[in-house]
Amino acid sequence: MLKKMILPFTLALSLLGISTAAYSEDSPAEAAAKYRQGAFQMTKFHFGQMGAVVKGAKEFNADEFKKNAEIVAMMSQIVANGFGEGSSADDSNAKPNVWTDAAGFKSKLESFQVEAAALVKAAESGDLEQIKPQFGKVAETCKACHKEYRND
Amino acid sequence: MLKKMILPFTLALSLLGISTAAYSEDSPAEAAAKYRQGAFQMTKFHFGQMGAVVKGAKEFNADEFKKNAEIVAMMSQIVANGFGEGSSADDSNAKPNVWTDAAGFKSKLESFQVEAAALVKAAESGDLEQIKPQFGKVAETCKACHKEYRND
Repeated sequence: MLKKMILPFTLALSLLGISTAAYSEDSPAEAAAKYRQGAFQMTKFHFGQMGAVVKGAKEFNADEFKKNAEIVAMMSQIVANGFGEGSSADDSNAKPNVWTDAAGFKSKLESFQVEAAALVKAAESGDLEQIKPQFGKVAETCKACHKEYRND
Repeated sequence: MLKKMILPFTLALSLLGISTAAYSEDSPAEAAAKYRQGAFQMTKFHFGQMGAVVKGAKEFNADEFKKNAEIVAMMSQIVANGFGEGSSADDSNAKPNVWTDAAGFKSKLESFQVEAAALVKAAESGDLEQIKPQFGKVAETCKACHKEYRND
């Protein structure tokens, strides 16, 4: 019993050594900037997959489309983790008004969240004619927020 | 009725112009590399939050810990999207054996998925003493896969 309890603890300690050594080189602001840039790239990837379907360059597969929409919706929720207090970094594409106009930024982010969730609903219909206009609405929220709060 | 049908279609077309112009500069391999690098940064962020708790540098909040664990588990599932066919990029940290030893890589990725899911379960207990060893196990899967398949 004692052995069982000691082993995981030792394991945890030795592995913590690994995680702090290998993964703690970023300041909180740098980590936040990398987080939101990561969310952007992942969102863009799935958005691009859906865009190819919407413009007819890729065959429509309802299940795949729904998965893409779900990941974008999830990203719209968690990307806020990259914009918390102390997350402003000098070398990031985020404009200072993300933080100085926090209410305006929050409102734009919420529009993205609402429309992305609506795209999941549209995707659940399996009807591309319902999906297309909603895809357009999501694209509009990307553009509206990036225009005001991001250096492209 | 006709007007209603035409409007969304026009909207979709005009917005597609936006998405293809602003977001299609990457080749599929580049997009995949950015995707997996994004997943890595997002995972690292949440892993770091949990690591700070496990090593006692940050107060334990069971709900927050669980959210961090859930996002890492979700990332462990979707990161595979960045390693599909044609996703090998010259300027990426992924070693060629990700693709030449696809079965070995898949096995390592699955270990990450299994242990990350188990960390969510451990986090649901709200008991830090159950969480710590499982956090260590997840860290071990990160290290095991990166050592073999990633240039650090």
